[in-house]
Amino acid sequence: MAKNIVARSKDYPQWYLDVIKAAELADYSPVRGCMVIRPHGYALWEAIQRDLDRRFKATGHQNAYFPLLIPVSFLEKEAQHVEGFAMECAVVTHSSLKKGEDGHLQARSELPEPFVVRPTSETIFGHMYAQWIQSYRDLPLLINQWANVMRWEMRTRLFLRTAEFLWQEGHTAHETAQEAQEETRRMLDVYAQFAHQFLAMPVVKGRKTESEKFPGAVTTYTIEALMQDGKALQAGTSHFLGQNFSKAFDIKYLDRGNQLQHCWTTSWGVSTRLIGGLIMTHSDDEGLILPPRVASTLGAVVPIYRSDEEKEQVITYCKRLLAALCGEEHLQAALERDKNREIISVFTDHSATQKIVLDLREGRAVEKHFHWEQRGLPFRFEVGPRDVANEAFVLKTRFDNSKEFCKLAEVDPQWLQKKVQTVQEAMYQKALQFQRSKTVEVESYDQLKEAVQAGGFVRCWFHEDPQVEAQIKEETKATVRCIPLEQPGGVGKCIFSGRETKEQVLFALAY
Amino acid sequence: MAKNIVARSKDYPQWYLDVIKAAELADYSPVRGCMVIRPHGYALWEAIQRDLDRRFKATGHQNAYFPLLIPVSFLEKEAQHVEGFAMECAVVTHSSLKKGEDGHLQARSELPEPFVVRPTSETIFGHMYAQWIQSYRDLPLLINQWANVMRWEMRTRLFLRTAEFLWQEGHTAHETAQEAQEETRRMLDVYAQFAHQFLAMPVVKGRKTESEKFPGAVTTYTIEALMQDGKALQAGTSHFLGQNFSKAFDIKYLDRGNQLQHCWTTSWGVSTRLIGGLIMTHSDDEGLILPPRVASTLGAVVPIYRSDEEKEQVITYCKRLLAALCGEEHLQAALERDKNREIISVFTDHSATQKIVLDLREGRAVEKHFHWEQRGLPFRFEVGPRDVANEAFVLKTRFDNSKEFCKLAEVDPQWLQKKVQTVQEAMYQKALQFQRSKTVEVESYDQLKEAVQAGGFVRCWFHEDPQVEAQIKEETKATVRCIPLEQPGGVGKCIFSGRETKEQVLFALAY
Repeated sequence: MAKNIVARSKDYPQWYLDVIKAAELADYSPVRGCMVIRPHGYALWEAIQRDLDRRFKATGHQNAYFPLLIPVSFLEKEAQHVEGFAMECAVVTHSSLKKGEDGHLQARSELPEPFVVRPTSETIFGHMYAQWIQSYRDLPLLINQWANVMRWEMRTRLFLRTAEFLWQEGHTAHETAQEAQEETRRMLDVYAQFAHQFLAMPVVKGRKTESEKFPGAVTTYTIEALMQDGKALQAGTSHFLGQNFSKAFDIKYLDRGNQLQHCWTTSWGVSTRLIGGLIMTHSDDEGLILPPRVASTLGAVVPIYRSDEEKEQVITYCKRLLAALCGEEHLQAALERDKNREIISVFTDHSATQKIVLDLREGRAVEKHFHWEQRGLPFRFEVGPRDVANEAFVLKTRFDNSKEFCKLAEVDPQWLQKKVQTVQEAMYQKALQFQRSKTVEVESYDQLKEAVQAGGFVRCWFHEDPQVEAQIKEETKATVRCIPLEQPGGVGKCIFSGRETKEQVLFALAY
Repeated sequence: MAKNIVARSKDYPQWYLDVIKAAELADYSPVRGCMVIRPHGYALWEAIQRDLDRRFKATGHQNAYFPLLIPVSFLEKEAQHVEGFAMECAVVTHSSLKKGEDGHLQARSELPEPFVVRPTSETIFGHMYAQWIQSYRDLPLLINQWANVMRWEMRTRLFLRTAEFLWQEGHTAHETAQEAQEETRRMLDVYAQFAHQFLAMPVVKGRKTESEKFPGAVTTYTIEALMQDGKALQAGTSHFLGQNFSKAFDIKYLDRGNQLQHCWTTSWGVSTRLIGGLIMTHSDDEGLILPPRVASTLGAVVPIYRSDEEKEQVITYCKRLLAALCGEEHLQAALERDKNREIISVFTDHSATQKIVLDLREGRAVEKHFHWEQRGLPFRFEVGPRDVANEAFVLKTRFDNSKEFCKLAEVDPQWLQKKVQTVQEAMYQKALQFQRSKTVEVESYDQLKEAVQAGGFVRCWFHEDPQVEAQIKEETKATVRCIPLEQPGGVGKCIFSGRETKEQVLFALAY
C-alpha cells in the first residue's frame, strides 16, 4: 500500500488529492482557487487537445482566438446569460499600477468601462459574427477556440472546479434551426466517441432538464460519466442556442430568397475537468492509472543489477530494448540530449508526443517501480541479468498488475502499438462494466432515495418539473444528470408525481 | 494590381493592414488594442506552435500551465521587473458584478489584494520553483508555457503590438551560471533555426545592449529580422537572468557538496508578433505570400470550364488530381464531410495539419485565382478541359508567379513534398539576399544617420553607452538592434566616440 495515498474506501476526496500530488499533476497556486498544472498533468491536457482537435477539424471546424476581456455591456445583452455569470467573475477596472503612500503598488488609470475576464465567449463571438456574416454563403461558420476562462467559484477542487481553467469552446452559426440542432448533436457524438476511444471513459449521452441547462441555451446536451465513488461527472456539454444570441447580437444573413434572417447558433465545450474524470475513472489505491493513448510517458525501463559488471550489461541491454521499442534514431537523440541526466526520455515518434523513459537513477528497483506506478505509466519494462542472458524482459502492466515474460526478438514499434490497443480496450471495458453495475432502475421516490445514497446512476420515469427537481435535490442532494438519448420507449409512471410520462431520466449525486 | 491592397511603395503601414484584411488573418476587436485572430491567421499560429513545440521537446523541455493572474505583491519583488511592467497592465480588483442604480452592471466584491493579468510570468514561476526545487537532483528544471499575456500598450498594430497577445515563455532553473548561459544560447539557436527552416525568415543572432535588455535580466539575446521596408523586427528573445529572480523568490537548492545555493535561471519567448514578421518578410503588392511549410492551406484546385458538360469532366478530373496529391482516403472523407459546401477541404495528413481545397464555387476563374492569391496559398492547380484530355494541369507558384505544366501521372504526395521543399528553400534564399543587400557597414556617425534613413541594418564599431544610445535614438530614431554574435574580430573605432572597441553592433529603425 502506498503510504502517501489514502485508500478510496477510507476517504475518497483525500484519495483524489493524494493521487494528484503523488503523480505531480497539479498544485494549488498563490492565486486563490487557481491551480498550476504541472508538466505531467499538462501532458494529459496536450494529449486531449491533440486528439480532440483532430476530431474537430475532421468535422469541418477551424480554430481562432478571441479576446480574453469582455466588455461588461456585452454580458448584459442576453438576460439569462448575465444571470448565470455575473456573480462570479474577475473584473478588470484599471490599466496601470502606481506606488501608493504605503510604498506598495495599487491600481490606477480607471477604465471608462470595466471588463470581465471571459467566463465563456458567446457574447464576443456573437459581436464578431454579426460583422463577418452577411449572406447564406458565409454559413455555416464553424469556429472553435482553445482558451483559458475564469469563474470565481467559492469552493474549488483541483481540475474539477477551479477559478481559472483551460477549455475549448466551439461557436457555430447556421442557416436553419435543423442544421444548428444537427451540429449540436454531432459535437455531442464527437465528445462521446472521444471519451470512449481516447479516455477509455464510458459516458451516457443525454439532454439536460430546463433547470440544469446552460444560461442562454434552448437545449443543452451533455455527456455524463460515473466516477468510482458513484458520483456523476458532467464531462462535456453541447448547446443549441436557437436565436437567443443571434437576436441579442444581431447576427443576420441574407437567405437564399434574399430575406434578412437571424442565424441559429450553437456552442459546445469540454475543459481540464476531463483530467479529473480521467483520474477518478481509472486510478486505484496505489495511485494514478492512465490509459495508454493518453499517457505521454508510455512506460519506464527499469534496469535491475547487483554489481557494476551487471549494471553495465543490463544497461547496454536496456538500450537495445529501447531501440527496438522506439527506433534507434530516437534512442540516439535521447542519449545525446539527456547525457547529463539520470532519466533518459526516448520519444516513440517524430512529433515527440509519447516517450519511454530509461531510469538510470541510483537506488532500489522497488523504489523506482513505486515512482513510475504512482505516475500512472501504463507499462514497466523490468530487465535483470537473467533477462540479458535470455534476451528477454518482464512487462508489467499497470492497470491490471499483470506480469508477462517477453522476448526481445518479438519487440518492435508495432508490438508496442498492439499492447497499447489491448490495454486501452480492456480499460474501457472495465470502466463500462463498473458503470453498468452501478446503474439501477427504480420505481418509486423511496427507492430513488435509497439508490442515490448507495451511489451510481439511478434510472427512472420522471415528469420534468423544476420545482420537483429542486425538492428532490433538497431532500437527496441528487440531480437529474440527464434525460438519456437512449430511451426504452413507451410510457411509464413518474416516480414522484405518478403522472404518465414518456421519458426516463438519470438521477445521481454529482461533482 | 489588387484594388483592395495599396502598394508597398505608396504606403507601407497601410499595405500591411490591407494584406491582413484581404487574407482575413485578424480583425480589431471591441476591446481596445486587442485583436481577434481569425481562422486563416490562427492556423499560422498553430503551425508555429506545432513546429516550435517539437523543437522544445527535442531539447528536453516540458509544457505546463501557470495562473493568468499574478498578485501585485509578486511584481514588487524584483525591482527592475516591476519598473518594466507596472505602467501598462490590466488590473483585476473585483470578483463579481451587480446591477447599479442606472441599471447597468458594475464591479462589486473588492479583492483584498489586486491582481494583474500576467504581462510575463517570471514571478509566479519563481514562486512555484522555490517550492518544487530542493536539491541539485531537481535541476535543471526546464518548463515552457503556451499562454496569453497582456500589456496595456498605447499604440497597437495587428500582430506586431497588441494589448493581449499569444506567446510561449520558457522558464528554466539550473545549478550553475554556465549551464544557464548555455540554455539561454541553446534556445536562441532553436529560435534562429526555426525562423530559418520554418518561417523562411533570415535572422541575425545577437546580444542586446544594457539599455535594451529585458527588465530583470543579466543578459538578453535576440533574433532580429529585417522587414521589406528596411525596419528591423525583434522576433524572439532569450534571457540569462542570473540569480536575480532566484534571490527575489528564494529559489534555492542543496548542491552536490550539501550547501544551500541560489539557482541560476533563464527565460525565453516568441509571440504572435512572428506572424507580423512572416507577413512583412514575404508578401507582395498582390497580398499575402506564405512559405509552404507554414501554410495550413497548401493550395487550391481551381476547375475552369465553359459548359455543364465540361464542368462535370473537369471536376471529376480535379478529384483524381486531389486523390493523387492527398490520398484517396482523405479525398473521400472530405467529399463526405463537405458535401453541402462549395469549397471542399482535403487534408494531406492524418493529423489534419495541412489541406488542399477544391473550389467549386460559381464564378469566374480569375476571381477565384484572386481569392486564393490574396490568402497567400503557395500553390494553385489550374485544370481546364484541355488538361483533362492531356492528363495534365498547370501549377502556379504564388511566391515567384511561375507557371509549370505538369502531368497527372507524375503526381503523388512525395511530388508535392518536393515542391514544398523547393519553394520553402527558394523563399528563404530570396529573403536572405534581401537582408544582405540591405545591410551596410558605416564608419562615421554621419554615415550612420544617412544609412539609417535609407533603411536596413547598419553595421558599425560602437562602444556601448546608454547615454549615447539615447542621443542617437533621439536624433535618428534608430536603436542598437543587437551586438551580433558573429563579429569580425580585432578592434575598430566607435563611430560616435572614436574610442577603440572590440565589437560591432547593428543599428536600425525598428518595429
